[in-house]
Amino acid sequence: MARKPAWAVEKERSRRDGRETLWLFGIHAVRDALTNPARARLSLVVTRNAADRLAEAIAVSGMEPRVVDARRFDAPIDPQSVHQGAALEVEPLDWGSVSEVCAPRGGAPLVLLLDRVTDPHNVGAILRSAEVFGARAVIAPHRHSAPETGALSKTASGALERQPYLRVPNLANAMGTLRDMGFAIIGLDGEADADLAAGIASFPDRPLALALGAEGPGLRMLTAKLCDRIVRIPAAGRFGSLNVSNAAAVGLYAVRAGQGGSA
Amino acid sequence: MARKPAWAVEKERSRRDGRETLWLFGIHAVRDALTNPARARLSLVVTRNAADRLAEAIAVSGMEPRVVDARRFDAPIDPQSVHQGAALEVEPLDWGSVSEVCAPRGGAPLVLLLDRVTDPHNVGAILRSAEVFGARAVIAPHRHSAPETGALSKTASGALERQPYLRVPNLANAMGTLRDMGFAIIGLDGEADADLAAGIASFPDRPLALALGAEGPGLRMLTAKLCDRIVRIPAAGRFGSLNVSNAAAVGLYAVRAGQGGSA
Repeated sequence: MARKPAWAVEKERSRRDGRETLWLFGIHAVRDALTNPARARLSLVVTRNAADRLAEAIAVSGMEPRVVDARRFDAPIDPQSVHQGAALEVEPLDWGSVSEVCAPRGGAPLVLLLDRVTDPHNVGAILRSAEVFGARAVIAPHRHSAPETGALSKTASGALERQPYLRVPNLANAMGTLRDMGFAIIGLDGEADADLAAGIASFPDRPLALALGAEGPGLRMLTAKLCDRIVRIPAAGRFGSLNVSNAAAVGLYAVRAGQGGSA
Repeated sequence: MARKPAWAVEKERSRRDGRETLWLFGIHAVRDALTNPARARLSLVVTRNAADRLAEAIAVSGMEPRVVDARRFDAPIDPQSVHQGAALEVEPLDWGSVSEVCAPRGGAPLVLLLDRVTDPHNVGAILRSAEVFGARAVIAPHRHSAPETGALSKTASGALERQPYLRVPNLANAMGTLRDMGFAIIGLDGEADADLAAGIASFPDRPLALALGAEGPGLRMLTAKLCDRIVRIPAAGRFGSLNVSNAAAVGLYAVRAGQGGSA
């Protein structure tokens, strides 16, 4: 994975009047954010061509775009970004608290916990999978995890606007909140003895949270301790390991296949 | 996903005396290729620091590295690449033919078919998953799919050296070869009526090939026609779609979970 340099990530984020803002870019990401009623938008920079392609979304948003020449596209984003002539400054979405978003109502909810997954491309892909499999939220600590950025939004391919991504001050506290609400927490670790499907089957009809660590370090000790079970995705050989977003997709699918798909 | 510009991909590939070569980079990728007996190696460029870290692998390979100053690292790779002071020119691996690599012997083999998946990061992640779930091969057409490059190798995290990645002149012909060997071919498509697990269950103990198309266009008509069944990964909601490498991981896991894991 081509790592985005830190300066590029920083460049996509800034502060305005004490509020945190970020720049989204690319036709799809900007269109989704323009038409999302929950999104606080600050400024829009577009080329003439992008303005035409986004005409409907711009009308919906009521924004007044600044139209610039394609050769002088000056939105403060990484110049290597595939911006397609559209950049939108927004505030991060406010999804509410863990207890609000994850409260069981009706079926057994499913939640994903990310322990220091910092790569925006992986988190973007995880948000897509979380949306597809109907996870109530993806929860990550505020520090040491991929912030909402233009790069993340682009990889998330629209899911950032729709899939709750909650960054919390403390992951252990969030896990406590989930347990108090009746969640069983299953940690994924390649070295575990128990099998993923068996782990899921041992909590029928329970709200479930799946916890994944970063590639390499895996789950931190404290996070692992707070899990009800640690399981592994069964591998055929001795070599190799899954990319973290691939592991998340497999985990989400396994829960849905094992529980029969309630949300 | 940050697309690698075409010139950067091209830069990592070249021709020497009529042979196709490419540059791998990064400590892990270079180490894996140095110690892979099947890899034809041409030249090695390292910083002093990288030479120390790779000392054992360099000794195994018998290569004579060219040691360069870190500020003058001149291997012909994308300067944005995280090369960690190590670059190795190699030939693509020759895995043999579809009929050799995929021939059923003992258990029911599993194979992945990629129909025009061009993003090297996605293909790299798919090779990792294919290795973990014991797929015999990942097969893709020579044109319109991600070539073996340094970027792919880095995302594959070692799997490129171990997981057969067969690029064939014609995907339809390869599908014919697989069918002649007794494979059932299951295509993945988000619009299909049948469910992934049900599709797999309908071919118990059969060698299976899973076919995936690129995000957006999906499977081409001809590829879909050559599949025995088209299935979808069940989604909870109406919105969103899986990243192609995530879909591949889910498909591979579902086959292994449904068949009990023979290789």
